[in-house]
Amino acid sequence: MSTAPHDLTASQMATRIAAGTLSARELAESCLEMVAAREPVVKAFAFLDPALVRAQADAVDAAKGGARGLIAGVPAAFKDIMDTADMPTCYNSPIYAGYRPRADASVVAFTRAAGGVVFGKAVTTEFANRHPGPTTNPHDAARTPGGSSSGSAAAVAARMVPLALGTQTSGSVIRPASYCGVHGFKGSWGEISYAGVKLTSSSLDTVGIYARSLADIALYRSVLTATPFVSLISGGVGLPRVGLCLTPWRDQAEAPMLAMLDEVAQAISRAGATVVDFDLPRHFARLIDAQRWVSAYEGSRSLAHEKLAHRDKLSEDIRHGRIRDGEGCSQELYHHSARFAERCRIELDTLFDDVDLLLTPAAPGEAPLGQRLTGSATFNTAWTLLHTPCVTIPGHTGPNGMPLGFQLVARRGADRSLLEMASWIERAAFK
Amino acid sequence: MSTAPHDLTASQMATRIAAGTLSARELAESCLEMVAAREPVVKAFAFLDPALVRAQADAVDAAKGGARGLIAGVPAAFKDIMDTADMPTCYNSPIYAGYRPRADASVVAFTRAAGGVVFGKAVTTEFANRHPGPTTNPHDAARTPGGSSSGSAAAVAARMVPLALGTQTSGSVIRPASYCGVHGFKGSWGEISYAGVKLTSSSLDTVGIYARSLADIALYRSVLTATPFVSLISGGVGLPRVGLCLTPWRDQAEAPMLAMLDEVAQAISRAGATVVDFDLPRHFARLIDAQRWVSAYEGSRSLAHEKLAHRDKLSEDIRHGRIRDGEGCSQELYHHSARFAERCRIELDTLFDDVDLLLTPAAPGEAPLGQRLTGSATFNTAWTLLHTPCVTIPGHTGPNGMPLGFQLVARRGADRSLLEMASWIERAAFK
Repeated sequence: MSTAPHDLTASQMATRIAAGTLSARELAESCLEMVAAREPVVKAFAFLDPALVRAQADAVDAAKGGARGLIAGVPAAFKDIMDTADMPTCYNSPIYAGYRPRADASVVAFTRAAGGVVFGKAVTTEFANRHPGPTTNPHDAARTPGGSSSGSAAAVAARMVPLALGTQTSGSVIRPASYCGVHGFKGSWGEISYAGVKLTSSSLDTVGIYARSLADIALYRSVLTATPFVSLISGGVGLPRVGLCLTPWRDQAEAPMLAMLDEVAQAISRAGATVVDFDLPRHFARLIDAQRWVSAYEGSRSLAHEKLAHRDKLSEDIRHGRIRDGEGCSQELYHHSARFAERCRIELDTLFDDVDLLLTPAAPGEAPLGQRLTGSATFNTAWTLLHTPCVTIPGHTGPNGMPLGFQLVARRGADRSLLEMASWIERAAFK
Repeated sequence: MSTAPHDLTASQMATRIAAGTLSARELAESCLEMVAAREPVVKAFAFLDPALVRAQADAVDAAKGGARGLIAGVPAAFKDIMDTADMPTCYNSPIYAGYRPRADASVVAFTRAAGGVVFGKAVTTEFANRHPGPTTNPHDAARTPGGSSSGSAAAVAARMVPLALGTQTSGSVIRPASYCGVHGFKGSWGEISYAGVKLTSSSLDTVGIYARSLADIALYRSVLTATPFVSLISGGVGLPRVGLCLTPWRDQAEAPMLAMLDEVAQAISRAGATVVDFDLPRHFARLIDAQRWVSAYEGSRSLAHEKLAHRDKLSEDIRHGRIRDGEGCSQELYHHSARFAERCRIELDTLFDDVDLLLTPAAPGEAPLGQRLTGSATFNTAWTLLHTPCVTIPGHTGPNGMPLGFQLVARRGADRSLLEMASWIERAAFK
């Protein structure tokens, strides 16, 4: 039985399109068929115009002779806080109904320049905060896909697109990847430009990638950072030294998550990795509060226009959450929290002298039931504040049949070697 | 002889409007008269519609009974990289001719909410980089006003508005203030939201304020940070301990700038300040390069849409400068530079245990002749990268009759006490 085009990884799609064994249009139609099949229940897209998708695919096919880019013909979805010149951008807020930006966000522009097909806009929670959109978990429509990058994770999980972008200010990329059973990657802060993405928190906001393989993440990351692409060499950096890091918040991890981490630790240890128990310094427990105040101080001010001119159109979730938090956060508390985070970043760099990466929960457990909440970001916010690269590796299943992912974290700036080590670990864990 | 309304400081304007002894409309007309008189030569505005100004002023006057905000009726100009829902925003680039954003930048929204009159859009260099706009120095039209916040500094200097906002990624606020003879303030990184301002460099971009007094800066800063306003108490923090910091780049300071610093140091010493020679650690000299690579890596990626879709409409200055720099900057060099800056920030915090602030050049000297270049940012880029609050104090005059300002720098987060100490120093220096 041959694999349907939409079931291929992005790397496979790109290779076949470049070789002429698959056309961009065929691929687009295959993805659109998946949309027809899954979207009525999954509701991953805030905007999707099949005609625009086909036109882009046809343009790639027509350019057969010329240079076509690393991801020519490959569809990607964009969280609906990322500007697109040819599609609306609405932040899941009635304030921006029908808004059409003038220019593409940098990540969209880099995607187009590499031949990628801008497939559609993925549902976000309101302004990438908590108030959910309509998206359901592709594995169980009664459960949340996580948030804030809800539609991006769900669209990749439902095989409607092979690539999607999200953003993480608290836990908005890594957690939905675990809930939806896809790979999620948040790079080191600053590496991927945030230009043209709706700003929440200058100190935290980071673009993230969803895909169905680590190779795809490496491929797309090179497009988005405008750096040369080199294929991932699994374990190219040698046998990893792994710290099993249950974090100061281990009490909030559910048994299936802890069991999976233990299982992965044993499997990779058998395969030759060094695995040690790794305790974060005790004061790192305060990073949760620090992230809360930094994101609230900055985030409530970044919504000045919305809260001052359109307060009645904001959800209670955001008015009584981040906005109220931010209005109550003094400048002293803000700076104190930011300085504390800075010291922890430097301290963590040093701790990474002894281990190459940390194995840690991506979320407390399976995606919770219900659509009202998007789950807890407890296992994500510290890493966001610490600016480290993080990746979710899916593949396990919890007691309710829902996906469970584990998280790998590396030193700031070690994004590339994180992906190579993760590739080795993924193989070892699932051997 | 009574002072014309446009000659008042922002604080005086706000007080008189609140007291009913000046109407917002009278003030607007007075400022518009200055525009009629000065703008044909100064060319500070990219957009200015007198009808919009009058409508806002009339709305303030009509709201006499109600709560009207800290700066009710006070005009402010905005660098034309800041989104305005009711005016074009064009970044001094033909790519964005006629562009009208959907929403206000946070700084614009906070200004409106405090009753401020959004007077017009001030000329910026192309995308707040080097390529200059038409603005001339209000003190000598043959000279540059500095950049990139050229129009903002010039508009305040020419008394067309009492307040204007700029941004600093290298030296774009502090230097033009010195060249134009106004107060310029760049706060600690992160305090004032960048939402709705065209992003160049996530690590560096900082909003700055131009005004004609430190009290005005304190007033407007409280509006922009959404924190309670307390009048500046000159020297409220005691007699300052001042480090005279000629920097590792002292060879690039011209004799009049060095003479002024010496004169100020003597005057404040006589008035009771402790003044000591202050040498930055030797390795701080490398901050210039670090700032170059951080701004280039991030800045060239933030212009992805423009360089990929509209390369022919970009100036040579930016294509052969920041964009080429950024395309040649590896991720290793980027992270190395960012980590170096981080260590220097923490080191500088410690150095501020011994002094309250640093007295240092705001620019090499008087504004250079010609409009082709906007002058050197050598005395600014390190502080931008270090995230410190900085203020330009004008008042001196160079050998060509052009303004000369000195710069005061304080510890990150000490923005308020910087302004109080600066207020004491300003009095002492000009006694």
